[in-house]
Amino acid sequence: MTNPLKLQTPIIIVNFKTYLEATGRKAVELAEKAEKVTKETGVCIAVAPQFADIAAVAKAVEIPVFAQHIDPVKPGSCTGHVLAESVREAGAVGTLINHSERQLKLSDIDATIKLAREKGLVSCVCANNPSVSAAVAALKPDIVSVEPPELIGTGIAVSQAQPEVVTDTVKLVRGINAKVIILCGAGISRGEDVAVALKLKTQGVLVASGIVKAKDPYSMLREFADATKH
Amino acid sequence: MTNPLKLQTPIIIVNFKTYLEATGRKAVELAEKAEKVTKETGVCIAVAPQFADIAAVAKAVEIPVFAQHIDPVKPGSCTGHVLAESVREAGAVGTLINHSERQLKLSDIDATIKLAREKGLVSCVCANNPSVSAAVAALKPDIVSVEPPELIGTGIAVSQAQPEVVTDTVKLVRGINAKVIILCGAGISRGEDVAVALKLKTQGVLVASGIVKAKDPYSMLREFADATKH
Amino acid sequence: MTNPLKLQTPIIIVNFKTYLEATGRKAVELAEKAEKVTKETGVCIAVAPQFADIAAVAKAVEIPVFAQHIDPVKPGSCTGHVLAESVREAGAVGTLINHSERQLKLSDIDATIKLAREKGLVSCVCANNPSVSAAVAALKPDIVSVEPPELIGTGIAVSQAQPEVVTDTVKLVRGINAKVIILCGAGISRGEDVAVALKLKTQGVLVASGIVKAKDPYSMLREFADATKH
Amino acid sequence: MTNPLKLQTPIIIVNFKTYLEATGRKAVELAEKAEKVTKETGVCIAVAPQFADIAAVAKAVEIPVFAQHIDPVKPGSCTGHVLAESVREAGAVGTLINHSERQLKLSDIDATIKLAREKGLVSCVCANNPSVSAAVAALKPDIVSVEPPELIGTGIAVSQAQPEVVTDTVKLVRGINAKVIILCGAGISRGEDVAVALKLKTQGVLVASGIVKAKDPYSMLREFADATKH
Repeated sequence: MTNPLKLQTPIIIVNFKTYLEATGRKAVELAEKAEKVTKETGVCIAVAPQFADIAAVAKAVEIPVFAQHIDPVKPGSCTGHVLAESVREAGAVGTLINHSERQLKLSDIDATIKLAREKGLVSCVCANNPSVSAAVAALKPDIVSVEPPELIGTGIAVSQAQPEVVTDTVKLVRGINAKVIILCGAGISRGEDVAVALKLKTQGVLVASGIVKAKDPYSMLREFADATKH
Repeated sequence: MTNPLKLQTPIIIVNFKTYLEATGRKAVELAEKAEKVTKETGVCIAVAPQFADIAAVAKAVEIPVFAQHIDPVKPGSCTGHVLAESVREAGAVGTLINHSERQLKLSDIDATIKLAREKGLVSCVCANNPSVSAAVAALKPDIVSVEPPELIGTGIAVSQAQPEVVTDTVKLVRGINAKVIILCGAGISRGEDVAVALKLKTQGVLVASGIVKAKDPYSMLREFADATKH
Repeated sequence: MTNPLKLQTPIIIVNFKTYLEATGRKAVELAEKAEKVTKETGVCIAVAPQFADIAAVAKAVEIPVFAQHIDPVKPGSCTGHVLAESVREAGAVGTLINHSERQLKLSDIDATIKLAREKGLVSCVCANNPSVSAAVAALKPDIVSVEPPELIGTGIAVSQAQPEVVTDTVKLVRGINAKVIILCGAGISRGEDVAVALKLKTQGVLVASGIVKAKDPYSMLREFADATKH
Repeated sequence: MTNPLKLQTPIIIVNFKTYLEATGRKAVELAEKAEKVTKETGVCIAVAPQFADIAAVAKAVEIPVFAQHIDPVKPGSCTGHVLAESVREAGAVGTLINHSERQLKLSDIDATIKLAREKGLVSCVCANNPSVSAAVAALKPDIVSVEPPELIGTGIAVSQAQPEVVTDTVKLVRGINAKVIILCGAGISRGEDVAVALKLKTQGVLVASGIVKAKDPYSMLREFADATKH
């Protein structure tokens, strides 16, 4: 995973957010289920646990582990901030940036993408709509993920309810950046949502409650992974 | 450590900030040195490593481990935020709040203190001057620590260079809150700085570079601990 | 109005927020209605229009005009910030600080209160609950106004629906600060709400939609003013 | 000025920041000098005074007046925020967005540009480097202005000291957006700095201290305007 450009697609990134179902010991268990599905299907699944869980999760599994955020700061006097070097040493190979629940100033997104690149972390930058996705693409991250905030956590999949958001994003982003991996997220909760997302020319999904709060996260992840093959 | 009121004083809290000298494996090593001094001297020393290092540090030592910050949020959809439950499960028994490098809105300081209390975490709230310390004291945290930002990281100790900041803080805080533990910080870099801080009626110090960037952190911590006994 | 200590109580402060009904020309008209009620009843009514309306309002009326916010900055390079000197020259004699819709870091509240004092502006600091009101009182502003955010704009008056919020605030604040003027706000929409607020030992109210969005703002303001006399 | 597309270039935008030399009565005087130069030379000069000065400035002069910032909010409950409708009614015809001293989250920049367009305000979005300028260009504002923060206020002109910042910006921006007006700023303090900026394919400059703090702002503005003609 040291070379972000070799990131395998399609990819499913599971954001653990601050769900108790994916905190501490349960974060490790959920990551192990994701790894099991990866081993069974060959589909790349990455997990994004909370900061305090990165080390234990990264020790327990071999699938890619992402931080949920890093700060655009250098080592030194930044109490309470999240240092790239720290999550890297804990085992993270990538990081979410600018998630709708942890948005950044534009100049900080730019600085964080550059910092991630410098420190060997895959950058996955979130955007709330097609125009913002295009702006993000201009900053050349490894991944851009479009997620309309109003659908996050609803179980109403962006790929099905707002396909034009996805297609507009793909169109605008590709007009600016041919290489960036494009994901979509928000409401993704069934295999079919994933299949449609791929049909719309994305290369994967960013999912949270659809997996974390599923009755049987393993089975749902398996359904997601299988859906990438149709 | 479940009862904050039993927190032993004098206390020395070592803030690891985002120093590389106190990140990852080195965070564990530094915490072990602090534990060694505590065992030799009986003086309470707490350590505040980065989020990703809390679990490993808490596993390695028995001295109190603090988070550097927590967010006033409930479990759920707070990507990139720091959940009280998460740092608690990782082994933290307390948290810094409102450090000058990670300041919060007033209503969030209030909410975070209440959250820490509810979750069994000792709250140590930082303040930049005497009047702000008094305001913090009105919110009834376990600990208030006054730290003039202009002295942080300078090696010029607040207790010696600005004793009136410390004495004014003690006076204003005690007029409002008889129980809160009062610390001072900023520039504390020698045992004498600690001794003077205690003479000025504080109950300990919050220190960072004075220990983390010392040539021999163990010896300096030992000097600090010994100084609390004069 | 140059001496904040001479601020007459009871006082009614009308926050124009960003309501179109109180923007531009309509801000001036509403302020003139407030002035009319002041002249008829002798009750002190202050108005807090948007920044761009301060000058026109202050030119049109003689009642106190407050800014809705100022930034704790000095003259110079602070593009897009609100300079104390600027609102002062435009005619403001006071400012709201830390309104729930424009909250500040604790150290900035402290700095802004001191700046307002230095520049001859009355400081009215908002707080969301009793403990935060107490913290604010420790910073010695001229006025503290408690406003539970969940009641703002509802028409359900804090003084009637949550009288304990008001009485707890008065008790905690008076334990720390004997001089500060105490207001309450949120949902104040009838004269009776004002009368009850005063009975609970506040010295006035901070009101917004109750006046700005009233069918007849003049009559409602008159009802408020008359209610202060019972 | 109701049609932003008719904005005349080259353009000089003078940001008054929070300089006392450009506050209140002095803001009007400085705007009048800018208008005089426009009348003498035919060069478009816009001024961006503080919020409280917009109305008086717009009443005194006929040249374009910009706000220094607006918030991406709708009319209603946004105490202390800057409403597009408010600055519009006060006489502004445009607004700066994301100045380095008043930076916004990426999604807020996008929302503010859309809001400005909807309300008939010209949008001038600031960016700190070429890649951020490209990201801004993808959001389709009327104007993008690149300003390396480290040169702001130094008197060392970006066009002369870091010409590659300007040329890289022009190249990246034009690869994404053929129409947006491109300005540069930071350190512009002589006519020659302006001439070089135009030679590097920008369409004008954003200037602050170079004019506001000049010994003779009128003469310096005249020098700037004349320099656009070479």
